[in-house]
Amino acid sequence: MESFVKDLVKKAKKNSYLLSTLNAEIKKDILFKMADFILQEKEFIIQQNLLDVKECERKGAKRSFIDRLTLNEKRLKEMSLSLREIAHLPDPVNQVVKGWQTSNGLSIYKVKVPIGVILIVYEARPNVTSDCVGLCFKSSNIAILKGGSEALNSNKAISQVLKKAAFSRGIDFEPFFFIETTSHEVVDLLLKESEYIDLVIPRGGESLIRKVVELSRIPVIKHYKGVCHIFVDEFADWEKALKICINAKVQRPSVCNAVETILIHRKIAPKFLPQLEEEFGKYGVVIKADEKALSFLKSASPAKEEDWVTEYLDLTVSIKVVENIDEAIEHINLYGSHHTDSIITQDVSNSRKFVEAVDSACCFVNISTRFSDGYQFGLGAEIGISTDKLHARGPMGIEELTTYKYVVYGEGQLRQ
Amino acid sequence: MESFVKDLVKKAKKNSYLLSTLNAEIKKDILFKMADFILQEKEFIIQQNLLDVKECERKGAKRSFIDRLTLNEKRLKEMSLSLREIAHLPDPVNQVVKGWQTSNGLSIYKVKVPIGVILIVYEARPNVTSDCVGLCFKSSNIAILKGGSEALNSNKAISQVLKKAAFSRGIDFEPFFFIETTSHEVVDLLLKESEYIDLVIPRGGESLIRKVVELSRIPVIKHYKGVCHIFVDEFADWEKALKICINAKVQRPSVCNAVETILIHRKIAPKFLPQLEEEFGKYGVVIKADEKALSFLKSASPAKEEDWVTEYLDLTVSIKVVENIDEAIEHINLYGSHHTDSIITQDVSNSRKFVEAVDSACCFVNISTRFSDGYQFGLGAEIGISTDKLHARGPMGIEELTTYKYVVYGEGQLRQ
Repeated sequence: MESFVKDLVKKAKKNSYLLSTLNAEIKKDILFKMADFILQEKEFIIQQNLLDVKECERKGAKRSFIDRLTLNEKRLKEMSLSLREIAHLPDPVNQVVKGWQTSNGLSIYKVKVPIGVILIVYEARPNVTSDCVGLCFKSSNIAILKGGSEALNSNKAISQVLKKAAFSRGIDFEPFFFIETTSHEVVDLLLKESEYIDLVIPRGGESLIRKVVELSRIPVIKHYKGVCHIFVDEFADWEKALKICINAKVQRPSVCNAVETILIHRKIAPKFLPQLEEEFGKYGVVIKADEKALSFLKSASPAKEEDWVTEYLDLTVSIKVVENIDEAIEHINLYGSHHTDSIITQDVSNSRKFVEAVDSACCFVNISTRFSDGYQFGLGAEIGISTDKLHARGPMGIEELTTYKYVVYGEGQLRQ
Repeated sequence: MESFVKDLVKKAKKNSYLLSTLNAEIKKDILFKMADFILQEKEFIIQQNLLDVKECERKGAKRSFIDRLTLNEKRLKEMSLSLREIAHLPDPVNQVVKGWQTSNGLSIYKVKVPIGVILIVYEARPNVTSDCVGLCFKSSNIAILKGGSEALNSNKAISQVLKKAAFSRGIDFEPFFFIETTSHEVVDLLLKESEYIDLVIPRGGESLIRKVVELSRIPVIKHYKGVCHIFVDEFADWEKALKICINAKVQRPSVCNAVETILIHRKIAPKFLPQLEEEFGKYGVVIKADEKALSFLKSASPAKEEDWVTEYLDLTVSIKVVENIDEAIEHINLYGSHHTDSIITQDVSNSRKFVEAVDSACCFVNISTRFSDGYQFGLGAEIGISTDKLHARGPMGIEELTTYKYVVYGEGQLRQ
């Protein structure tokens, strides 16, 4: 296994140098081919996916798990469309971010370049395979993909089809690597290869991500979870506030940018909370509330300390009454996950204070936390969301898959 | 010790929120005060420094070590001047990097913000204390400083003076933390505090840096070493090439951006190498050469495989004859440290090929590798050089001590 991993990462690094010389037009053309091939080979992919689905059904996997795993014509069309959209994005490589000339005549260019080799460790959804291949290829990075064992046949089939597409356009090296072994050891070994792998992106549940961070000697970009807040200020527009709270909780509760805790200014709590409870009641949302909030709510149960750090991923919400905006900010910075937090207010000073003092990747004013998303921001496809502060923060688009180098031209200058 | 560390990092995080609200004018004013105080309190600092110097002499430390440790009036003036220069830099915080409006009316701002809490682990030179305090304070980050035990009294004195300067301008919280204990355990514990410390910057020898990387659960920015190359192309201007090779090796051989390996195109080797040897001879540079190069040199000894990865930090250079530019690039990417590499050529196609294909933080054309430096680039003061690819690469100025957040304003938009 060790020599397999060493060979793999060396090949990946070598191919990353080859990939970095492909020009933007050729990459675009290959991405269109990949999009075409996904549709042309749909029967093969669906047939291979069926092997995985049947095996999971046999093992008695959860309905929701099998749903995420299953590929059908509609999903393949989405995957193909996503590759097309990636193809159309502006090429992120070789952009000059900044350039200047120094007083002694050095011309300095700060140029965007690929990161190199990116290891992506992910769980069941097979569309991650084509999305990640698309994003890494567009940004001239070699992806090493390690998917969940439950989707092995599906991922293998997708990988084969995407490689065939690349080879059909004259690429004579592997444009990405898919790891077919289901051994866990292979991931442990890969995470030590800091000389050849430049970045690790784990995509999946918190336990997977914690394991990767624990073992990795390579920089990791990740978010553990999204404990997102809405603070309804005393100067909130109530109509906006109610709609935003509902949208942020119920529109898709299972995702990381759904709201988990709502903070209410004490001045509006007595009248606002009963209205909020009524609205949540229509969607069957379960409320956990602190002592002060409980006194204005009929059906809520008491929140425990652990509720403030819990990502429910479900139709459950925690509610707390705060003295003022300062307490709201303090609560968010202490208990939150630094992902996305929104203030609802018509007061411009409070909105400024909130966005400056809240230490989160995304600080919103008067919108649903659900907008924390690469597509919604207009970044194009998204490889993930980062709650880290280094390199990339918030929704990560294709630009975040680049680094830079300094290119400096001179005429024989010497250091004094 | 564990509770000491926990208290410290919690206080540091809290203070980082306080520091982030200080406006640019106040920060500038305090930095000027710090610069003033360093000079006003010079006798105290020099007297404390003398304790360290005498102890090191007693222990029989190397001359060069004691030289780096010693503070005198000239060095204090330099430290003061450096703080003044940092004060004058444009404030890196709250700049809007990008801003746009989406089709549904969200106004999105990508804003530069401080990273938060930065741990700096360093060795003997006491000026690092004031430089790092200045850079972190200017970028609104709370620094936690852990210096070498040999410079404890000096660093303590400098820290006291800098804090006094900040307090004299009305700051009512500690603007940075200096760790007075000499225990190694404290670093091990700090490196686990990923919830409170956002970034670690180790400054010192390779063994210190490797230890920090091994133990840290927090992102680290570093460079292990600088194995820098010059490739003298067949189309080089010989006069420039000779001067640049000499400058890059002998002007200050002990630093990371000095050249270690010179690659020579085989077509010019027979005539160029004897000239280069003659020039190096004037400065007493020892040459280690590969077999081909040896045949054109009189006094060189054979290079071993390990020479290609060695940072001599001394008046020693390794020389290799290469078939062509491709072999030069391959050698640099394989053996180099991805720090700084320079091509000497008058051929514009070769210069482009070199800067695109060499996978290093700094790719130079016709200049000495010694220009790889924040001051030389015009970035102002430099907190270090990164050979990492994530977040910061190459000379790291004050801008690299920031991250960003997304601030988004809306009018009640809901996610569909």
